[in-house]
Amino acid sequence: MNPGNPAVENTDASAGPAGGEKADTLALLERGRTLSTPVLRAAVDRLAAPMDTVAAYHFGWIDAHGNPADGDGGKAVRPALALLSAEAAGAAAEVGIPGAVAVELVHNFSLLHDDLMDGDEQRRHRDTVWKVHGPALAILVGDALFALANEVLLELGTVEAGRAARRLTTASRKLIDGQAQDISYEHRESVTVEECLEMEGNKTGALLACAVSIGAVLGGADDRTADKLEEYGYHLGLAFQAVDDLLGIWGDPESTGKQTWSDLRQRKKSLPVVAALAAGGPASEELTELLAADAKSNDFENFSEEEFAARAALIEAAGGRRWTADEARRQYEIAIKALDDVDMDQRVRDQLVALADFVVVRKR
Amino acid sequence: MNPGNPAVENTDASAGPAGGEKADTLALLERGRTLSTPVLRAAVDRLAAPMDTVAAYHFGWIDAHGNPADGDGGKAVRPALALLSAEAAGAAAEVGIPGAVAVELVHNFSLLHDDLMDGDEQRRHRDTVWKVHGPALAILVGDALFALANEVLLELGTVEAGRAARRLTTASRKLIDGQAQDISYEHRESVTVEECLEMEGNKTGALLACAVSIGAVLGGADDRTADKLEEYGYHLGLAFQAVDDLLGIWGDPESTGKQTWSDLRQRKKSLPVVAALAAGGPASEELTELLAADAKSNDFENFSEEEFAARAALIEAAGGRRWTADEARRQYEIAIKALDDVDMDQRVRDQLVALADFVVVRKR
Repeated sequence: MNPGNPAVENTDASAGPAGGEKADTLALLERGRTLSTPVLRAAVDRLAAPMDTVAAYHFGWIDAHGNPADGDGGKAVRPALALLSAEAAGAAAEVGIPGAVAVELVHNFSLLHDDLMDGDEQRRHRDTVWKVHGPALAILVGDALFALANEVLLELGTVEAGRAARRLTTASRKLIDGQAQDISYEHRESVTVEECLEMEGNKTGALLACAVSIGAVLGGADDRTADKLEEYGYHLGLAFQAVDDLLGIWGDPESTGKQTWSDLRQRKKSLPVVAALAAGGPASEELTELLAADAKSNDFENFSEEEFAARAALIEAAGGRRWTADEARRQYEIAIKALDDVDMDQRVRDQLVALADFVVVRKR
Repeated sequence: MNPGNPAVENTDASAGPAGGEKADTLALLERGRTLSTPVLRAAVDRLAAPMDTVAAYHFGWIDAHGNPADGDGGKAVRPALALLSAEAAGAAAEVGIPGAVAVELVHNFSLLHDDLMDGDEQRRHRDTVWKVHGPALAILVGDALFALANEVLLELGTVEAGRAARRLTTASRKLIDGQAQDISYEHRESVTVEECLEMEGNKTGALLACAVSIGAVLGGADDRTADKLEEYGYHLGLAFQAVDDLLGIWGDPESTGKQTWSDLRQRKKSLPVVAALAAGGPASEELTELLAADAKSNDFENFSEEEFAARAALIEAAGGRRWTADEARRQYEIAIKALDDVDMDQRVRDQLVALADFVVVRKR
C-alpha cells in the first residue's frame, strides 16, 4: 500500500487509500468508538461532582450548559489501535477494551493539562475546559482521568493488566517529559531537529505506541511482540506529528478548529520551523534573524495575519515544509516495516496499514 | 497508651506520650526517611529537565537557586507507616520501601497541584513551586510525580505490586475527589459536618490508609488484613485532619509555616467552622450571619487581623473548637481499635500506637 504524498499539500482522494479501504478504516474507527465509549462513560461517571460533568463536557457528551450533545470526541485512532492490538496477539478485539479506555483517559488527561499550560482556548471547535470551568477544574479533572486510567486496568486484577499498566505508566511519563521539553523549547533560541524529534516522540509517539501494544499485552502477548507493535506505533506517532506540524502552520482553521498560523503564534519550535532554521541558505538566515527579533518583541501578540504569513513563506522557502512532508513519509515507512516482525493475521496487518494511511494522509 | 488531650490547646509534654516513647517515634520517622529518601531521589532523578530540578526544590533538596539545601521535607509520617505496614504483615521493613516512595510521590503530587489551585504561596516555610517556577511547571511536575508513583510500584513486576498499585490508584482518586469537594465547599453557603468528614476522609484519610496497607500488601498480606490496616490509617487520617483544622485557625504561624487564620482567609469550610455553624445558639447564629455577609463582600481580601480574630472567637464560642478536639480523640480511638483485629507482632502494634499519638498530639 502506498501512502502517496503524506502531507496536507496533497489531500485529494487519489493520493490517499482507495475508496473501499477508506470505508474500512472508518468502520474500524467506528468499532473502536462503539466498543470503548460505554466503558469510558461508565468510568467517568465514577468521578465526584462536579468533575463528572466537566469531564463529560470535555469529551463532548454535554454542552457548556449541561445539555446532552453529540460533540466531536476526536478521531478515536487510539481506541481503534488498541482493539486491533488485541487481535494482533490472536485475542478477541474486546480483550483490548480496557486498554483502549485507559489510553483514551491518559490522552485526555494530557489534553486538559496541556490546553491550560499552553493557554489554548479552543479544542475540537469548542471552548477548552479551563476556559469554561476555570483552571482548578482543568487541573483536577485531568488528574482524575489519569488516576482512572490506571484504575480501569488494575481492577482487572490479572498479571497481564499489571504489565499493561506498567507500559501505560511509562508512556505517560514520556508524554509528560515531552510536554516539559515542548514548553522549554518555546523559550530557547535554537532547537535541533533531533531534539524536536525526541520531544515529538515523547509527546505523541509514546502513547500511540502504548495504544498498539496494550491490547496485545492484555491478550497475553510476550514482551518482544509488544515491543515490535510499539515500534510501529511510535513511528506512526512521529508521522502523525509531522503532519500535525504542517497543519499547525498551513492547516485550514475550518478543518483544524484552531487559529490560523496556530503554532507560529505560540512560537512552537515544530519540525518545519527547526528544519528551516537548520537548512542554511538565504531564506533560512532571514528566518533566523526574524525569529530572534520576534523573541525580543513586546508586540508579538498584536502581529497581523500578514506578518505570520511572511514567516510561513520563509519557512517554506527554506525547505521546512518539504522536509517535514518527507519526514512524515520516512516515519510512516519505518512504522510499516516494524509490522513485518510480528506474526499476525493478514487481515489485522492490512488494517494496521490502512489506519497508518488514514493517519498520515488527512486534512486534520 | 493515652493520647491525652489531642488538640493544639494542649501540647505540653505531660499530655503527650512519655519521653522515651516520643524518642522511639522520632527514630521511627527517621528510619522511614533514611530508607525511603535515596529511592525517592533516584526516582525523581529520572525526570526530564527542568522537572527534576523543580521536584528537588519542592522536596527541599535544593534552594530556589539550585544550591543544595537541607530543607524541611515534612514529617514523613507516611514512609514510616509504610515500613511498619510491611512489618505488620511479618515481612522486613525494607519490603515496604517502594510503597513508602510511591505514597510520598502521590502525596507530593497532590501538594503541588493543591497549592496552585488554592493559591497558597508558602509550604514548609518556603515559597511554593508555582510561586517560584510558575503554574505550568507546578502542573507538570505534579503529573510527573503521580506517574512515577505508579512506575516505582509496577516495575517490581510482581502480583503483589499490582495489588499495591491498585490500592494506591483508588486512594489517589479519593484524594482528587476530596480536593474537588474542598474547592466546591468554599463556594457553598452551607456544608454539613458529615460532608466535611467525607471530604477530609477522601483528602487525608485515604492516602494515610494506603500508606498503612501498602507495605503489608507488598509483603504478601491478604485483603482482609490490608483492609483492617487501612481502617486504622483512615481514622488516623481523620484525627490528623481534625488537629490540622484546629491549627489552620489557631495554629502559630511560626510553627505551621502558614499565615495567621490561614483557613479563614481561604473561607475553608473546615471542621471547627461547620461544627460551629451546626451548633445552634447565639454565637452560632451570629457566625452564620457574619460568614454569609463575608461571602458577598468585595473587601474580604483586605480584612484585618482583628476581623479574622473575631470570627475565630465566634467559632470557639459556638463550640466548634471543642467539638473538633473531641472528634480528633474519637477518630484516634477508632483507629487504635482497628489494630485489635490484625494479628501482628506486639512491638509493631506498639509503634503504630505511638505514631498515632505523635500525629494527634502535635504542634504542627
